[in-house]
Amino acid sequence: MIERIHSKQRMSKIVKHGGVVYLCGQVGDGATVTEQTEDCLGRVDHLLREAGSSRAHILQATIWLADTADFDAMNAVWDAWVPEGAAPARACGEAKLADAELRVEVIVTAALTA
Amino acid sequence: MIERIHSKQRMSKIVKHGGVVYLCGQVGDGATVTEQTEDCLGRVDHLLREAGSSRAHILQATIWLADTADFDAMNAVWDAWVPEGAAPARACGEAKLADAELRVEVIVTAALTA
Amino acid sequence: MIERIHSKQRMSKIVKHGGVVYLCGQVGDGATVTEQTEDCLGRVDHLLREAGSSRAHILQATIWLADTADFDAMNAVWDAWVPEGAAPARACGEAKLADAELRVEVIVTAALTA
Repeated sequence: MIERIHSKQRMSKIVKHGGVVYLCGQVGDGATVTEQTEDCLGRVDHLLREAGSSRAHILQATIWLADTADFDAMNAVWDAWVPEGAAPARACGEAKLADAELRVEVIVTAALTA
Repeated sequence: MIERIHSKQRMSKIVKHGGVVYLCGQVGDGATVTEQTEDCLGRVDHLLREAGSSRAHILQATIWLADTADFDAMNAVWDAWVPEGAAPARACGEAKLADAELRVEVIVTAALTA
Repeated sequence: MIERIHSKQRMSKIVKHGGVVYLCGQVGDGATVTEQTEDCLGRVDHLLREAGSSRAHILQATIWLADTADFDAMNAVWDAWVPEGAAPARACGEAKLADAELRVEVIVTAALTA
């Protein structure tokens, strides 16, 4: 009924249920918000493919920025990454993240395609 | 399988899937949190109707306030807006928003009625 | 179609729809983040049982900490609470909460088992 992939004690990276996949909050490596967003969205890609979904099937994305001053730089990466005609519902707010070096975290819910 | 309305490159205002509608984070115009909350919830109304849902069918609402000092003022508008007997699950926390003038953002997931 | 439990004007503590239960954001009593997290997760337990779910069926959890310095202390309680093999997708960020004494809030979406 519930399928979990990359499941550890604290969290599962992928949880599938009822035609929907929930990813744990994704962050990225890099010195700048641009690098971190690119790496973060690459991880989202990888996890969604593994789950049986894709970036074209995201339903809802919540983006946390450590500093809203990074809004435009994050969006430049985001806008290029979203497939044309397949943008999700999205919200973006400022939240300090678990590690002070982290600039961006993305929380994704997507539809399963298979 | 996924239906999107008001879809642009960055986000879709409405995403429908599996009997559920996801709205992008809604903000409102106005000088005060009261005005912004009223305008924001009016936009939620409009989008939910367009999606085939309504404020009586909200499942989950997440509210971000730029300043928790606005909690009571936001709630006064919220409490009057929620239909009796149809309140959603809700959470409210403080998060700076994309634009410094924004006081409140509401993220809504609702059930489709048709 | 939508079932609400402990429903007041502002919010419902439990909203059930389409095999999924949405809980309103849960906080806890206590002087420390450890005590608050324990109390908060106890409330989650209680509400999930009442809804026809359990901590072993959580799909997605969002955790807001008033101060990310509490990350390790919150996680110690969290890690002991999550059933082995049943961890949800999770995200954790910093957000001031409605009341200045609150250190942690947990927002849970879970699968219904009956």
